[in-house]
Amino acid sequence: MHAEPVYCPQCGASSLEYRIPEGDTKRRNVCARCGYIIYQNPLMVAGAVLEWEGKILLCKRAIKPRFGLWTLPAGFMENHETLEECARRESMEEATAEIENIALFSLYSLPHISQIYAIYSGVLAGGKSEPGEESSATDLFTPEEIPWDDIAFDIIRENLRLYLEHGPGNGHVHTGTVMPHPGAGAQAETGR
Amino acid sequence: MHAEPVYCPQCGASSLEYRIPEGDTKRRNVCARCGYIIYQNPLMVAGAVLEWEGKILLCKRAIKPRFGLWTLPAGFMENHETLEECARRESMEEATAEIENIALFSLYSLPHISQIYAIYSGVLAGGKSEPGEESSATDLFTPEEIPWDDIAFDIIRENLRLYLEHGPGNGHVHTGTVMPHPGAGAQAETGR
Repeated sequence: MHAEPVYCPQCGASSLEYRIPEGDTKRRNVCARCGYIIYQNPLMVAGAVLEWEGKILLCKRAIKPRFGLWTLPAGFMENHETLEECARRESMEEATAEIENIALFSLYSLPHISQIYAIYSGVLAGGKSEPGEESSATDLFTPEEIPWDDIAFDIIRENLRLYLEHGPGNGHVHTGTVMPHPGAGAQAETGR
Repeated sequence: MHAEPVYCPQCGASSLEYRIPEGDTKRRNVCARCGYIIYQNPLMVAGAVLEWEGKILLCKRAIKPRFGLWTLPAGFMENHETLEECARRESMEEATAEIENIALFSLYSLPHISQIYAIYSGVLAGGKSEPGEESSATDLFTPEEIPWDDIAFDIIRENLRLYLEHGPGNGHVHTGTVMPHPGAGAQAETGR
């Protein structure tokens, strides 16, 4: 659940209290009538840095937030899929892109927005891409052509920088935390 | 939300329909009255393989499921923490254990229960542990002493096996998928 709940999803009462349940250490929304506890947990995002003949695939966002800015294909993981399946699905949905030689590239925490990003690297099969519903364009960029000022999210900029410095995933996985920079609003991947 | 919702958390109506929302590709619980969409996504678990003088820390579960079986300290990630903070918190909560030389060790998908496990490796500081509220005992095991038949979850057994074969994390991260084995029920880390 991504908005604050008002009614209990189990009994329908408007009696949610934001308090620490018995035996817990964190405050949760707890129903005062039926006792149901609404847990809210971080969301997992998976995506991919895809290369073809020295160029990197970027997608121009046709959705909010960061409409019109460039990003890697990435999105929220669905139930009953693996991280790798999610990265492949998002690449197909956002860029009609197939991945060869897929490998885990990075795993980052974004605690300010309660998201975790698992980015894979791979070869863009045949160099082919077409914009999906959430993209207005897809294009291949040489390292010199990457539009650094028009990248949609800090976590995407960080992965592009790591990729240009270290190359594709080879078993070694880059890890870390991306925090908001001063003056920036919370940056969220909200494309679904 | 971890149980099937009955009432809309936004408007309280008992009018949820399980269908594909407009512009989406997956079925969700959608409120027929107010249009609210309840997204349900995989849960992230973090934990740790902790070593002290050639022995590995295990915790005996004092909670369901798998009550009385042995496991690594691990649990669901909370909002606004990093993966590493989660692994440290769970180690403290379940085994009063502090971690030195922490490094990401493995990242596995468990699609049948919609969970992702990020396991860290590290040194058990001072070799000290005490059972927390969710454990009835903590103990250090040599590789020969590990109670393979009494390990709580397949994903924990897999991480112990990987650790004994490859040693602690050093930048290389083990990745994969754990599926249910024939005849086994869904295995879930449900300690909170």
